Amino acid sequence: MTEQQTVTAALLVIGNEILSGRTQDANLAHVAKALNEVGVQLVEARVVKDVEADIVAALDALRARYDHVITTGGIGPTHDDITARSVAKAFGRELARNPEAHRRLVAHYAQFDGLELNAARLRMADTPAGAELIDNPISAAPGFRVENVHVLAGVPSIMQAMLDGFRHDLRGGAPVRSRSVACNLGEGTVAAELTRLQARWPEVEIGSYPRFAGSGYRTAVVLRDSDEQRLGRVFDELCALIRELGGQPRPEEPA
Amino acid sequence: MTEQQTVTAALLVIGNEILSGRTQDANLAHVAKALNEVGVQLVEARVVKDVEADIVAALDALRARYDHVITTGGIGPTHDDITARSVAKAFGRELARNPEAHRRLVAHYAQFDGLELNAARLRMADTPAGAELIDNPISAAPGFRVENVHVLAGVPSIMQAMLDGFRHDLRGGAPVRSRSVACNLGEGTVAAELTRLQARWPEVEIGSYPRFAGSGYRTAVVLRDSDEQRLGRVFDELCALIRELGGQPRPEEPA
Repeated sequence: MTEQQTVTAALLVIGNEILSGRTQDANLAHVAKALNEVGVQLVEARVVKDVEADIVAALDALRARYDHVITTGGIGPTHDDITARSVAKAFGRELARNPEAHRRLVAHYAQFDGLELNAARLRMADTPAGAELIDNPISAAPGFRVENVHVLAGVPSIMQAMLDGFRHDLRGGAPVRSRSVACNLGEGTVAAELTRLQARWPEVEIGSYPRFAGSGYRTAVVLRDSDEQRLGRVFDELCALIRELGGQPRPEEPA
Repeated sequence: MTEQQTVTAALLVIGNEILSGRTQDANLAHVAKALNEVGVQLVEARVVKDVEADIVAALDALRARYDHVITTGGIGPTHDDITARSVAKAFGRELARNPEAHRRLVAHYAQFDGLELNAARLRMADTPAGAELIDNPISAAPGFRVENVHVLAGVPSIMQAMLDGFRHDLRGGAPVRSRSVACNLGEGTVAAELTRLQARWPEVEIGSYPRFAGSGYRTAVVLRDSDEQRLGRVFDELCALIRELGGQPRPEEPA
Protein backbone atom coordinates (compact mmCIF):
# COMPACT_ATOMS: atom_id res chain seq x y z
CA MET A 1 0.00 0.00 0.00
CA THR A 2 1.74 3.20 -1.13
CA GLU A 3 0.92 6.63 0.28
CA GLN A 4 -0.61 7.59 -3.07
CA GLN A 5 -3.30 4.94 -2.84
CA THR A 6 -4.22 5.73 0.75
CA VAL A 7 -7.44 7.65 1.22
CA THR A 8 -7.73 8.87 4.80
CA ALA A 9 -10.57 9.78 7.11
CA ALA A 10 -11.06 11.04 10.64
CA LEU A 11 -14.07 10.61 12.90
CA LEU A 12 -15.31 13.39 15.17
CA VAL A 13 -17.71 12.12 17.85
CA ILE A 14 -19.70 15.02 19.32
CA GLY A 15 -21.49 14.63 22.62
CA ASN A 16 -21.22 15.16 26.37
CA GLU A 17 -22.79 11.75 26.97
CA ILE A 18 -19.73 9.94 25.58
CA LEU A 19 -17.27 11.94 27.70
CA SER A 20 -19.33 11.54 30.88
CA GLY A 21 -19.25 7.77 30.42
CA ARG A 22 -23.04 7.63 30.31
CA THR A 23 -23.06 6.27 26.76
CA GLN A 24 -20.55 3.78 25.41
CA ASP A 25 -19.57 4.90 21.89
CA ALA A 26 -20.60 2.32 19.33
CA ASN A 27 -19.88 4.36 16.22
CA LEU A 28 -16.08 4.33 16.02
CA ALA A 29 -15.66 0.61 15.40
CA HIS A 30 -18.54 0.57 12.90
CA VAL A 31 -17.24 3.56 10.92
CA ALA A 32 -13.74 2.06 10.88
CA LYS A 33 -14.95 -1.20 9.34
CA ALA A 34 -17.47 0.35 6.95
CA LEU A 35 -14.87 2.77 5.58
CA ASN A 36 -12.23 0.10 5.30
CA GLU A 37 -14.55 -1.98 3.11
CA VAL A 38 -14.53 0.86 0.56
CA GLY A 39 -10.78 1.45 0.81
CA VAL A 40 -10.79 4.44 3.14
CA GLN A 41 -8.52 4.29 6.19
CA LEU A 42 -9.71 5.77 9.47
CA VAL A 43 -6.53 7.24 10.93
CA GLU A 44 -7.72 9.43 13.79
CA ALA A 45 -10.75 9.90 15.99
CA ARG A 46 -11.65 12.63 18.44
CA VAL A 47 -14.43 12.99 20.97
CA VAL A 48 -15.48 16.51 22.01
CA LYS A 49 -18.24 17.99 24.13
CA ASP A 50 -21.25 19.92 22.82
CA VAL A 51 -19.24 23.16 22.88
CA GLU A 52 -19.07 25.22 19.69
CA ALA A 53 -15.44 26.35 20.05
CA ASP A 54 -14.29 22.77 20.67
CA ILE A 55 -16.22 21.41 17.69
CA VAL A 56 -14.92 24.13 15.37
CA ALA A 57 -11.31 23.63 16.50
CA ALA A 58 -11.50 19.88 15.96
CA LEU A 59 -13.21 20.27 12.56
CA ASP A 60 -10.57 22.72 11.37
CA ALA A 61 -7.69 20.48 12.45
CA LEU A 62 -9.18 17.32 10.94
CA ARG A 63 -10.58 18.62 7.64
CA ALA A 64 -7.22 20.19 6.78
CA ARG A 65 -5.33 17.00 7.45
CA TYR A 66 -7.49 14.15 6.12
CA ASP A 67 -9.35 13.43 2.89
CA HIS A 68 -12.67 12.96 4.70
CA VAL A 69 -14.10 13.86 8.08
CA ILE A 70 -17.18 12.16 9.47
CA THR A 71 -18.99 13.61 12.46
CA THR A 72 -21.57 11.83 14.59
CA GLY A 73 -24.02 13.41 17.02
CA GLY A 74 -25.58 16.75 17.78
CA ILE A 75 -28.07 17.11 14.89
CA GLY A 76 -31.32 16.61 16.80
CA PRO A 77 -33.91 19.22 17.85
CA THR A 78 -32.76 20.16 21.37
CA HIS A 79 -30.61 22.98 22.74
CA ASP A 80 -27.55 20.74 23.06
CA ASP A 81 -27.63 19.87 19.33
CA ILE A 82 -25.20 22.43 17.93
CA THR A 83 -23.32 20.51 15.25
CA ALA A 84 -24.93 22.21 12.21
CA ARG A 85 -24.26 25.67 13.62
CA SER A 86 -20.68 24.70 14.46
CA VAL A 87 -19.99 23.29 10.98
CA ALA A 88 -21.39 26.49 9.44
CA LYS A 89 -19.06 28.52 11.63
CA ALA A 90 -16.03 26.39 10.73
CA PHE A 91 -16.67 26.98 7.03
CA GLY A 92 -17.66 30.65 7.45
CA ARG A 93 -21.11 29.98 5.99
CA GLU A 94 -24.57 31.05 7.05
CA LEU A 95 -26.84 28.53 8.76
CA ALA A 96 -30.04 28.48 6.71
CA ARG A 97 -33.28 26.52 6.39
CA ASN A 98 -32.73 23.90 3.66
CA PRO A 99 -35.93 23.64 1.55
CA GLU A 100 -35.49 19.97 0.67
CA ALA A 101 -34.78 19.03 4.27
CA HIS A 102 -37.86 21.02 5.28
CA ARG A 103 -39.96 19.15 2.74
CA ARG A 104 -38.74 15.79 4.06
CA LEU A 105 -39.58 16.72 7.65
CA VAL A 106 -43.07 17.88 6.67
CA ALA A 107 -43.72 14.60 4.84
CA HIS A 108 -42.33 12.55 7.72
CA TYR A 109 -44.23 14.24 10.55
CA ALA A 110 -47.48 14.18 8.58
CA GLN A 111 -47.45 10.41 9.16
CA PHE A 112 -47.58 10.75 12.94
CA ASP A 113 -50.62 11.85 14.85
CA GLY A 114 -49.21 13.14 18.10
CA LEU A 115 -45.99 14.65 16.71
CA GLU A 116 -46.09 18.29 15.74
CA LEU A 117 -43.44 19.72 13.38
CA ASN A 118 -42.73 22.57 15.78
CA ALA A 119 -39.93 25.15 15.79
CA ALA A 120 -37.55 22.83 17.61
CA ARG A 121 -37.98 20.00 15.10
CA LEU A 122 -37.72 22.46 12.20
CA ARG A 123 -34.20 23.28 13.41
CA MET A 124 -33.27 19.86 11.99
CA ALA A 125 -33.79 21.37 8.50
CA ASP A 126 -31.12 24.03 9.10
CA THR A 127 -27.81 23.37 7.36
CA PRO A 128 -24.80 25.44 6.38
CA ALA A 129 -25.58 27.25 3.11
CA GLY A 130 -24.72 25.12 0.09
CA ALA A 131 -24.62 21.86 2.03
CA GLU A 132 -25.57 18.65 0.23
CA LEU A 133 -28.07 16.48 2.11
CA ILE A 134 -27.30 12.97 3.32
CA ASP A 135 -30.36 10.72 3.33
CA ASN A 136 -31.83 9.46 6.59
CA PRO A 137 -34.02 6.47 5.67
CA ILE A 138 -35.00 5.90 9.30
CA SER A 139 -36.27 9.16 10.76
CA ALA A 140 -36.14 11.58 7.80
CA ALA A 141 -34.10 14.41 9.38
CA PRO A 142 -31.13 14.43 7.03
CA GLY A 143 -27.40 14.65 7.60
CA PHE A 144 -25.37 16.84 5.27
CA ARG A 145 -22.02 17.28 3.60
CA VAL A 146 -19.96 20.47 3.32
CA GLU A 147 -16.81 19.95 1.25
CA ASN A 148 -15.04 16.98 2.87
CA VAL A 149 -17.05 17.02 6.11
CA HIS A 150 -19.92 14.52 6.39
CA VAL A 151 -22.33 15.22 9.25
CA LEU A 152 -24.26 12.20 10.58
CA ALA A 153 -26.64 11.43 13.44
CA GLY A 154 -25.32 9.97 16.68
CA VAL A 155 -27.94 7.23 17.14
CA PRO A 156 -26.08 4.16 15.81
CA SER A 157 -28.87 2.72 13.63
CA ILE A 158 -29.43 6.09 11.91
CA MET A 159 -25.71 6.79 11.61
CA GLN A 160 -25.14 3.41 9.96
CA ALA A 161 -27.98 3.90 7.48
CA MET A 162 -26.69 7.36 6.55
CA LEU A 163 -23.13 6.10 6.08
CA ASP A 164 -24.25 3.18 3.93
CA GLY A 165 -25.92 5.63 1.58
CA PHE A 166 -22.74 7.44 0.57
CA ARG A 167 -19.67 5.49 1.62
CA HIS A 168 -19.32 3.80 -1.77
CA ASP A 169 -19.03 7.23 -3.39
CA LEU A 170 -15.98 8.21 -1.36
CA ARG A 171 -12.90 8.10 -3.54
CA GLY A 172 -11.35 5.00 -2.02
CA GLY A 173 -8.08 3.17 -2.36
CA ALA A 174 -7.81 -0.59 -2.36
CA PRO A 175 -9.59 -2.12 0.65
CA VAL A 176 -7.26 -3.42 3.30
CA ARG A 177 -7.45 -7.14 4.03
CA SER A 178 -6.46 -8.66 7.32
CA ARG A 179 -5.36 -12.07 8.51
CA SER A 180 -4.90 -13.04 12.12
CA VAL A 181 -3.24 -15.81 14.01
CA ALA A 182 -3.18 -16.59 17.72
CA CYS A 183 -0.52 -18.63 19.47
CA ASN A 184 0.30 -20.05 22.88
CA LEU A 185 3.40 -17.86 23.33
CA GLY A 186 3.74 -14.68 25.33
CA GLU A 187 4.12 -11.36 23.49
CA GLY A 188 7.68 -10.99 24.77
CA THR A 189 8.59 -14.39 23.31
CA VAL A 190 7.55 -13.47 19.78
CA ALA A 191 8.55 -9.79 19.97
CA ALA A 192 12.07 -10.00 18.48
CA GLU A 193 10.95 -12.13 15.52
CA LEU A 194 7.95 -9.86 14.90
CA THR A 195 10.29 -6.87 14.78
CA ARG A 196 12.36 -8.64 12.11
CA LEU A 197 9.22 -9.64 10.19
CA GLN A 198 8.04 -6.01 10.22
CA ALA A 199 11.46 -4.84 8.98
CA ARG A 200 11.31 -7.33 6.07
CA TRP A 201 7.75 -6.25 5.15
CA PRO A 202 7.41 -2.53 5.92
CA GLU A 203 4.24 -2.20 3.78
CA VAL A 204 2.32 -4.63 5.98
CA GLU A 205 0.84 -3.37 9.23
CA ILE A 206 1.69 -5.93 11.91
CA GLY A 207 -0.15 -5.60 15.22
CA SER A 208 0.46 -7.70 18.30
CA TYR A 209 -2.11 -8.10 21.10
CA PRO A 210 -1.63 -9.92 24.38
CA ARG A 211 -4.23 -12.19 25.94
CA PHE A 212 -4.34 -13.49 29.45
CA ALA A 213 -6.09 -16.81 29.14
CA GLY A 214 -6.57 -19.07 32.14
CA SER A 215 -4.04 -21.47 30.63
CA GLY A 216 -1.26 -18.87 30.38
CA TYR A 217 -0.04 -16.10 28.13
CA ARG A 218 -1.20 -15.97 24.55
CA THR A 219 -0.60 -13.56 21.70
CA ALA A 220 -2.75 -12.60 18.74
CA VAL A 221 -1.03 -11.13 15.69
CA VAL A 222 -2.98 -9.22 13.07
CA LEU A 223 -1.61 -8.52 9.57
CA ARG A 224 -3.21 -5.79 7.45
CA ASP A 225 -2.37 -5.09 3.80
CA SER A 226 -4.17 -4.12 0.62
CA ASP A 227 -2.07 -6.59 -1.40
CA GLU A 228 -3.67 -9.99 -0.81
CA GLN A 229 -0.80 -12.03 -2.26
CA ARG A 230 1.78 -10.29 -0.14
CA LEU A 231 -0.50 -10.72 2.87
CA GLY A 232 -0.56 -14.47 2.25
CA ARG A 233 3.24 -14.69 2.10
CA VAL A 234 3.68 -12.74 5.34
CA PHE A 235 1.01 -14.88 7.00
CA ASP A 236 2.92 -18.03 6.03
CA GLU A 237 6.18 -16.57 7.37
CA LEU A 238 4.43 -15.61 10.60
CA CYS A 239 3.06 -19.14 11.14
CA ALA A 240 6.52 -20.58 10.41
CA LEU A 241 8.25 -18.34 12.92
CA ILE A 242 5.71 -19.18 15.61
CA ARG A 243 6.46 -22.88 15.06
CA GLU A 244 10.21 -22.22 15.18
CA LEU A 245 9.72 -20.53 18.57
CA GLY A 246 7.98 -23.69 19.83
CA GLY A 247 4.46 -22.31 19.51
CA GLN A 248 1.32 -23.57 17.86
CA PRO A 249 -0.26 -21.09 15.40
CA ARG A 250 -4.06 -21.22 15.06
CA PRO A 251 -6.68 -19.17 13.34
CA GLU A 252 -7.42 -16.33 15.69
CA GLU A 253 -9.93 -16.98 18.44
CA PRO A 254 -12.64 -14.48 19.20
CA ALA A 255 -11.29 -11.82 21.61
CA MET B 1 -19.69 24.56 39.30
CA THR B 2 -17.36 27.48 38.56
CA GLU B 3 -14.41 27.26 36.19
CA GLN B 4 -12.09 27.50 39.17
CA GLN B 5 -13.29 24.25 40.65
CA THR B 6 -13.17 22.32 37.39
CA VAL B 7 -10.24 19.95 37.04
CA THR B 8 -9.98 18.72 33.46
CA ALA B 9 -8.55 15.66 31.79
CA ALA B 10 -8.14 14.28 28.29
CA LEU B 11 -7.77 10.67 27.22
CA LEU B 12 -5.40 9.61 24.45
CA VAL B 13 -6.13 6.12 23.17
CA ILE B 14 -3.13 4.75 21.25
CA GLY B 15 -3.52 1.81 18.90
CA ASN B 16 -4.13 0.77 15.32
CA GLU B 17 -6.55 -1.91 16.50
CA ILE B 18 -9.09 0.68 17.66
CA LEU B 19 -8.97 2.64 14.38
CA SER B 20 -9.23 -0.50 12.24
CA GLY B 21 -12.40 -1.49 14.08
CA ARG B 22 -10.84 -4.76 15.19
CA THR B 23 -11.11 -3.83 18.85
CA GLN B 24 -14.02 -1.95 20.41
CA ASP B 25 -12.57 0.61 22.82
CA ALA B 26 -13.71 -0.12 26.35
CA ASN B 27 -11.48 2.35 28.16
CA LEU B 28 -13.12 5.71 27.38
CA ALA B 29 -16.36 5.12 29.27
CA HIS B 30 -14.52 3.58 32.23
CA VAL B 31 -11.99 6.42 32.50
CA ALA B 32 -14.80 8.99 32.24
CA LYS B 33 -16.70 7.49 35.15
CA ALA B 34 -13.66 6.72 37.32
CA LEU B 35 -12.35 10.29 36.93
CA ASN B 36 -15.74 11.82 37.57
CA GLU B 37 -15.95 9.98 40.89
CA VAL B 38 -12.87 11.89 42.06
CA GLY B 39 -14.08 15.22 40.66
CA VAL B 40 -12.06 15.28 37.44
CA GLN B 41 -13.96 16.04 34.21
CA LEU B 42 -12.99 14.21 31.03
CA VAL B 43 -13.46 16.88 28.35
CA GLU B 44 -11.77 15.44 25.27
CA ALA B 45 -10.60 12.12 23.91
CA ARG B 46 -8.46 11.28 20.92
CA VAL B 47 -7.58 8.01 19.23
CA VAL B 48 -4.36 7.83 17.22
CA LYS B 49 -2.40 5.11 15.44
CA ASP B 50 0.90 3.64 16.63
CA VAL B 51 2.80 6.40 14.81
CA GLU B 52 5.33 8.44 16.78
CA ALA B 53 4.64 11.79 15.13
CA ASP B 54 0.89 11.41 15.68
CA ILE B 55 1.30 10.44 19.33
CA VAL B 56 3.69 13.34 20.01
CA ALA B 57 1.41 15.87 18.30
CA ALA B 58 -1.63 14.70 20.27
CA LEU B 59 0.31 14.67 23.56
CA ASP B 60 1.59 18.19 23.00
CA ALA B 61 -1.87 19.54 22.20
CA LEU B 62 -3.59 17.82 25.12
CA ARG B 63 -1.03 18.29 27.90
CA ALA B 64 -0.89 22.03 27.22
CA ARG B 65 -4.65 22.38 27.39
CA TYR B 66 -5.85 20.11 30.20
CA ASP B 67 -4.84 19.52 33.81
CA HIS B 68 -4.26 15.81 33.24
CA VAL B 69 -3.71 13.54 30.25
CA ILE B 70 -4.20 9.80 30.45
CA THR B 71 -2.90 7.56 27.70
CA THR B 72 -3.87 3.93 27.14
CA GLY B 73 -2.06 1.38 25.01
CA GLY B 74 1.33 0.83 23.43
CA ILE B 75 3.44 -0.09 26.46
CA GLY B 76 3.95 -3.81 25.78
CA PRO B 77 7.07 -5.60 24.50
CA THR B 78 6.49 -5.66 20.73
CA HIS B 79 7.66 -3.43 17.87
CA ASP B 80 4.31 -1.63 17.70
CA ASP B 81 4.53 -0.54 21.36
CA ILE B 82 6.04 2.92 21.00
CA THR B 83 4.24 4.96 23.63
CA ALA B 84 7.16 5.28 26.10
CA ARG B 85 9.52 6.43 23.31
CA SER B 86 6.91 8.90 22.05
CA VAL B 87 6.27 10.39 25.51
CA ALA B 88 10.05 10.78 26.00
CA LYS B 89 10.22 12.60 22.67
CA ALA B 90 7.29 14.89 23.53
CA PHE B 91 9.02 15.95 26.75
CA GLY B 92 12.52 16.13 25.22
CA ARG B 93 13.81 13.49 27.64
CA GLU B 94 15.97 10.41 27.16
CA LEU B 95 14.34 6.97 27.17
CA ALA B 96 16.21 4.99 29.83
CA ARG B 97 15.98 1.69 31.69
CA ASN B 98 14.17 2.36 34.97
CA PRO B 99 15.90 0.34 37.76
CA GLU B 100 12.75 -0.12 39.85
CA ALA B 101 10.70 -1.19 36.82
CA HIS B 102 13.51 -3.61 35.93
CA ARG B 103 13.46 -5.03 39.48
CA ARG B 104 9.68 -5.58 39.28
CA LEU B 105 9.93 -7.39 35.95
CA VAL B 106 12.73 -9.65 37.26
CA ALA B 107 10.63 -10.56 40.31
CA HIS B 108 7.51 -11.13 38.19
CA TYR B 109 9.08 -13.31 35.51
CA ALA B 110 10.95 -15.40 38.11
CA GLN B 111 7.51 -16.81 39.04
CA PHE B 112 6.90 -18.27 35.57
CA ASP B 113 8.72 -21.27 34.22
CA GLY B 114 8.40 -20.89 30.50
CA LEU B 115 8.65 -17.09 30.31
CA GLU B 116 12.09 -15.62 29.81
CA LEU B 117 12.78 -11.98 30.68
CA ASN B 118 14.33 -11.36 27.28
CA ALA B 119 15.34 -8.12 25.56
CA ALA B 120 11.83 -7.51 24.22
CA ARG B 121 10.21 -7.82 27.67
CA LEU B 122 12.96 -5.69 29.24
CA ARG B 123 11.84 -2.84 26.95
CA MET B 124 8.82 -2.60 29.29
CA ALA B 125 11.24 -1.23 31.93
CA ASP B 126 12.24 1.70 29.70
CA THR B 127 10.66 5.03 30.65
CA PRO B 128 11.39 8.68 29.97
CA ALA B 129 14.12 9.84 32.36
CA GLY B 130 12.67 11.06 35.64
CA ALA B 131 9.30 9.35 35.16
CA GLU B 132 7.42 8.21 38.26
CA LEU B 133 6.14 4.63 38.05
CA ILE B 134 2.46 3.69 38.14
CA ASP B 135 1.86 0.32 39.78
CA ASN B 136 0.57 -2.61 37.74
CA PRO B 137 -0.84 -5.11 40.26
CA ILE B 138 -1.82 -7.54 37.50
CA SER B 139 1.19 -8.16 35.26
CA ALA B 140 3.97 -6.12 36.93
CA ALA B 141 5.15 -4.06 33.92
CA PRO B 142 4.44 -0.57 35.25
CA GLY B 143 2.88 2.49 33.71
CA PHE B 144 4.47 5.84 34.43
CA ARG B 145 3.82 9.52 34.89
CA VAL B 146 5.75 12.44 33.39
CA GLU B 147 4.46 15.80 34.64
CA ASN B 148 0.72 15.76 33.89
CA VAL B 149 0.79 12.77 31.51
CA HIS B 150 -0.19 9.39 32.97
CA VAL B 151 0.73 6.43 30.76
CA LEU B 152 -1.36 3.27 31.23
CA ALA B 153 -1.72 -0.14 29.59
CA GLY B 154 -4.37 -0.71 26.93
CA VAL B 155 -5.73 -4.02 28.26
CA PRO B 156 -8.85 -2.89 30.17
CA SER B 157 -8.32 -4.94 33.35
CA ILE B 158 -4.74 -3.68 33.71
CA MET B 159 -5.67 -0.12 32.77
CA GLN B 160 -8.43 -0.07 35.39
CA ALA B 161 -6.14 -1.41 38.12
CA MET B 162 -3.48 1.17 37.28
CA LEU B 163 -5.99 4.03 37.29
CA ASP B 164 -7.48 2.95 40.61
CA GLY B 165 -4.03 3.19 42.17
CA PHE B 166 -3.61 6.92 41.56
CA ARG B 167 -6.89 8.54 40.61
CA HIS B 168 -7.65 9.61 44.18
CA ASP B 169 -4.39 11.60 44.22
CA LEU B 170 -5.42 13.76 41.27
CA ARG B 171 -6.29 17.25 42.46
CA GLY B 172 -10.04 16.97 41.94
CA GLY B 173 -12.98 19.35 42.17
CA ALA B 174 -16.35 18.35 43.53
CA PRO B 175 -17.64 15.17 41.88
CA VAL B 176 -20.45 15.75 39.43
CA ARG B 177 -23.77 14.12 40.29
CA SER B 178 -26.36 13.23 37.69
CA ARG B 179 -30.10 12.63 37.69
CA SER B 180 -32.05 11.30 34.75
CA VAL B 181 -35.64 11.11 33.72
CA ALA B 182 -37.28 9.48 30.72
CA CYS B 183 -40.63 10.45 29.29
CA ASN B 184 -43.09 9.40 26.60
CA LEU B 185 -42.64 12.58 24.57
CA GLY B 186 -40.52 13.14 21.44
CA GLU B 187 -37.35 15.23 21.71
CA GLY B 188 -38.89 17.93 19.54
CA THR B 189 -41.87 18.20 21.89
CA VAL B 190 -39.72 18.98 24.93
CA ALA B 191 -37.02 20.94 23.08
CA ALA B 192 -38.35 24.48 23.58
CA GLU B 193 -38.97 23.99 27.31
CA LEU B 194 -35.55 22.36 27.75
CA THR B 195 -33.95 25.39 26.11
CA ARG B 196 -35.69 27.63 28.64
CA LEU B 197 -34.71 25.35 31.54
CA GLN B 198 -31.07 25.48 30.40
CA ALA B 199 -31.24 29.29 30.18
CA ARG B 200 -32.58 29.48 33.75
CA TRP B 201 -29.89 27.12 35.07
CA PRO B 202 -26.71 27.71 33.01
CA GLU B 203 -24.51 25.91 35.60
CA VAL B 204 -26.34 22.62 35.09
CA GLU B 205 -25.42 20.46 32.09
CA ILE B 206 -28.69 19.34 30.49
CA GLY B 207 -28.44 16.59 27.89
CA SER B 208 -31.29 15.24 25.81
CA TYR B 209 -31.26 11.80 24.16
CA PRO B 210 -33.87 10.36 21.83
CA ARG B 211 -35.10 6.78 22.00
CA PHE B 212 -37.06 4.86 19.44
CA ALA B 213 -39.10 2.46 21.51
CA GLY B 214 -41.64 0.15 19.88
CA SER B 215 -44.41 2.19 21.45
CA GLY B 216 -43.28 5.51 19.93
CA TYR B 217 -40.82 8.30 20.48
CA ARG B 218 -39.30 8.74 23.92
CA THR B 219 -36.77 11.14 25.36
CA ALA B 220 -34.26 10.73 28.17
CA VAL B 221 -32.97 13.87 29.85
CA VAL B 222 -29.80 13.82 31.93
CA LEU B 223 -28.90 16.57 34.40
CA ARG B 224 -25.30 16.89 35.64
CA ASP B 225 -24.14 19.25 38.37
CA SER B 226 -21.70 19.25 41.28
CA ASP B 227 -24.27 21.04 43.50
CA GLU B 228 -26.65 18.35 44.70
CA GLN B 229 -29.28 20.74 46.06
CA ARG B 230 -29.46 22.72 42.84
CA LEU B 231 -29.60 19.45 40.92
CA GLY B 232 -32.67 18.43 42.94
CA ARG B 233 -34.46 21.71 42.21
CA VAL B 234 -33.79 21.46 38.47
CA PHE B 235 -34.89 17.82 38.50
CA ASP B 236 -38.22 18.83 40.08
CA GLU B 237 -38.70 21.60 37.51
CA LEU B 238 -37.93 19.13 34.72
CA CYS B 239 -40.52 16.62 35.95
CA ALA B 240 -43.09 19.42 36.27
CA LEU B 241 -42.53 20.68 32.73
CA ILE B 242 -42.83 17.16 31.32
CA ARG B 243 -46.21 16.84 33.05
CA GLU B 244 -47.30 20.25 31.73
CA LEU B 245 -46.49 19.05 28.20
CA GLY B 246 -48.78 16.05 28.74
CA GLY B 247 -46.00 13.56 29.40
CA GLN B 248 -45.31 11.09 32.16
CA PRO B 249 -41.88 11.46 33.78
CA ARG B 250 -40.26 8.30 35.09
CA PRO B 251 -36.89 7.37 36.50
CA GLU B 252 -34.69 6.72 33.51
CA GLU B 253 -34.88 3.27 31.97
CA PRO B 254 -31.68 1.43 31.03
CA ALA B 255 -30.54 2.51 27.53
